[in-house]
Amino acid sequence: MKILEEKILSEGTVLPNNVLKVDRFLNHKIDPQLMFQIGEEFARRFEGKGITKILTIESSGIAPSVMAGFVMQVPVIFARKKRSLTMVDELLTASVFSYTKREVQEISVSKKLLSPEDRILIIDDFLANGEAAQGLVNIVKASGGELVGIGIVIEKAFQNGGDQLRSKGICVESLVAIDSLANKTISFSKNKEVQFQ
Amino acid sequence: MKILEEKILSEGTVLPNNVLKVDRFLNHKIDPQLMFQIGEEFARRFEGKGITKILTIESSGIAPSVMAGFVMQVPVIFARKKRSLTMVDELLTASVFSYTKREVQEISVSKKLLSPEDRILIIDDFLANGEAAQGLVNIVKASGGELVGIGIVIEKAFQNGGDQLRSKGICVESLVAIDSLANKTISFSKNKEVQFQ
Repeated sequence: MKILEEKILSEGTVLPNNVLKVDRFLNHKIDPQLMFQIGEEFARRFEGKGITKILTIESSGIAPSVMAGFVMQVPVIFARKKRSLTMVDELLTASVFSYTKREVQEISVSKKLLSPEDRILIIDDFLANGEAAQGLVNIVKASGGELVGIGIVIEKAFQNGGDQLRSKGICVESLVAIDSLANKTISFSKNKEVQFQ
Repeated sequence: MKILEEKILSEGTVLPNNVLKVDRFLNHKIDPQLMFQIGEEFARRFEGKGITKILTIESSGIAPSVMAGFVMQVPVIFARKKRSLTMVDELLTASVFSYTKREVQEISVSKKLLSPEDRILIIDDFLANGEAAQGLVNIVKASGGELVGIGIVIEKAFQNGGDQLRSKGICVESLVAIDSLANKTISFSKNKEVQFQ
């Protein structure tokens, strides 16, 4: 997705340990117009798949998911990392290690919000080692619903999460794939390489 | 906002201790079409106010805020409850007590994302005791930007957060105000009362 690559180059920064900082448009400050374009692109890529629900995880997955749900006219469910007093129903849970927060979190979704009749699209902002995505896949499995695929805004293709998920036969669509962040240089897949300012 | 009152009546439930559970369309499962209508309504209520940014708090404030930002064509910033490895910049912080999670949380926003030139609209899903809203007000003050007002999806008007904020001269607009949740009965302001099923 060209416009997203351009946004990453103009507003992203590379931190040590292969961390890509995109807090100026995706996961702290949000560009709603860009989120809508992202939603349209997810809708295009998963068109005709009969999706009934989008599943994501708080917090950074919510904005792109809500726009995808708006375009596709399906509800969005976000897995919670922390239980609230209002989560009094039976829960589907999975354990997820957060790379940027350095801790294992139990994510949960109220069981009644997903059913075996659902055809579910998982959406998240990043895919790196695939921990969050795999946790969401486990929740879909536990629900009895069908996993249609996974839509990712930015895939770090040099980490193995995407490969692991695809090797299981899961359709993973990334709007942008990054091959390397070495030397503060953002290198997108298809050999397009641009020096980070 | 009539459609929102109807949604609360048809899909909300009342839990003990005056907790209104709206996890079927607002804060766990999200109805993106309704969020868009909410965004339009916030845009209408704050029209002509020269808003440059929307400030909210993760996670449940994000969906209505992103839709408001989409309609108003302004960026959204969400305060984080937990710091991430990517938050390496100077932060604006405030302490907030969460009623539904029973704990004090420090919320934070990267300082560079808000400037003294900004005219800021705060949006959140609920207003009860006003802890989260006051925390966001404190962050706006610390940024030097101007607080235009606060947009709330559901105000629990029988708790004192709204009164406290309005007594300070802050413009608080609630799309739905609830006067009472006693006896599992949702009573909207304007004396409209409906027995909860």
